[in-house]
Amino acid sequence: MSLTFYYAPMSTASITQLVLAELDVPFEGVKLDIQKGETKKPDFVKLNPNAKIPTIVHDGAVIWESAAITMYLGETFGVDKGLYPAPGPKRGDAMKWIVWTNVTFGDAVGRWTRNTTSWYPAEQQNAKAGEAGLADVHNCLRILDDALDGKQFLLGSDYTLADTHTNSFVDWLRHMKMDLSKYAHLTAWGQRCAARPAYLKVMSGA
Amino acid sequence: MSLTFYYAPMSTASITQLVLAELDVPFEGVKLDIQKGETKKPDFVKLNPNAKIPTIVHDGAVIWESAAITMYLGETFGVDKGLYPAPGPKRGDAMKWIVWTNVTFGDAVGRWTRNTTSWYPAEQQNAKAGEAGLADVHNCLRILDDALDGKQFLLGSDYTLADTHTNSFVDWLRHMKMDLSKYAHLTAWGQRCAARPAYLKVMSGA
Repeated sequence: MSLTFYYAPMSTASITQLVLAELDVPFEGVKLDIQKGETKKPDFVKLNPNAKIPTIVHDGAVIWESAAITMYLGETFGVDKGLYPAPGPKRGDAMKWIVWTNVTFGDAVGRWTRNTTSWYPAEQQNAKAGEAGLADVHNCLRILDDALDGKQFLLGSDYTLADTHTNSFVDWLRHMKMDLSKYAHLTAWGQRCAARPAYLKVMSGA
Repeated sequence: MSLTFYYAPMSTASITQLVLAELDVPFEGVKLDIQKGETKKPDFVKLNPNAKIPTIVHDGAVIWESAAITMYLGETFGVDKGLYPAPGPKRGDAMKWIVWTNVTFGDAVGRWTRNTTSWYPAEQQNAKAGEAGLADVHNCLRILDDALDGKQFLLGSDYTLADTHTNSFVDWLRHMKMDLSKYAHLTAWGQRCAARPAYLKVMSGA
């Protein structure tokens, strides 16, 4: 078994970093500096033509897209550890939340940030599109909050990698200082996720 | 086993329709009229608070997001039929393409159409963002074209649901009359996908 993880600090690769910490599997980490153009170098582009991290290589298979990586690592290493559902309807529930985070929730966050932050060209921005994106971000947060009403974790009483994945994405909104206090169930869930030993270990840089 | 499929004609649910046709599993179809607001009715929103199709209910589990649905149906019904890889690195390759289609490729297509078509409010549009989105659509098409160089299908010599999913998404660009002729490998692959009996059956409305 060989597992290589290409990442950059403070990027969407943080989700995969947390997933690997929860699973506690050995891997070789390869740190790339996005600012220095290291994700655009020929050797890396040969692995991932999107020139993006996270990217993993497991036993010869190159896998991109954080949602695909979480589900793949989950089904490969997480079932025995109780961190990912065995095949069946409950696994479908996990897949739904993980994909939703990157597709529907990610799209809303993308439309908000692309139109309102200095990371994107001002000439491509539209303030009203930014407002609409932000409204959709809040709709996604409400959907999550409702889903967590009466539940400890997304799939019920047990923590799974669906929580690792989705909470790590919400962490980025917390990092952006978005006020999430009105989402009480989501806030309490975020605290439960942040109390995980793997989370504390990654956040402390251990 | 019970399987219900909520869909609308000429929508992203077409991907799931093709996946179900390839798998040839029995299901109950529930057609919703988006224009009449049927996806926003309380009974449906209770199933999918995003008010979107496709949505499936399998043995009590409600699953949204076409990428999650393709992978879930694939691992549940497709392995024995040779349409989805067994667990292992090759499955990771399938998951990568399916998720990439909806996340990276879907994001590019979304930025292009949101900024250039009359389906979205003009006051939220920015022509330069539309141009940048279109450039990214072509970058995704080039990535696909390169990946298909020397291969019959995305994972190699065998057709899988990764082809069903990604080609069905590309079909929408064909429907939009985008000229894809310069992508020779992609074009030949699209013809191979369109020759599948399940594809022909769905397209003929059978």
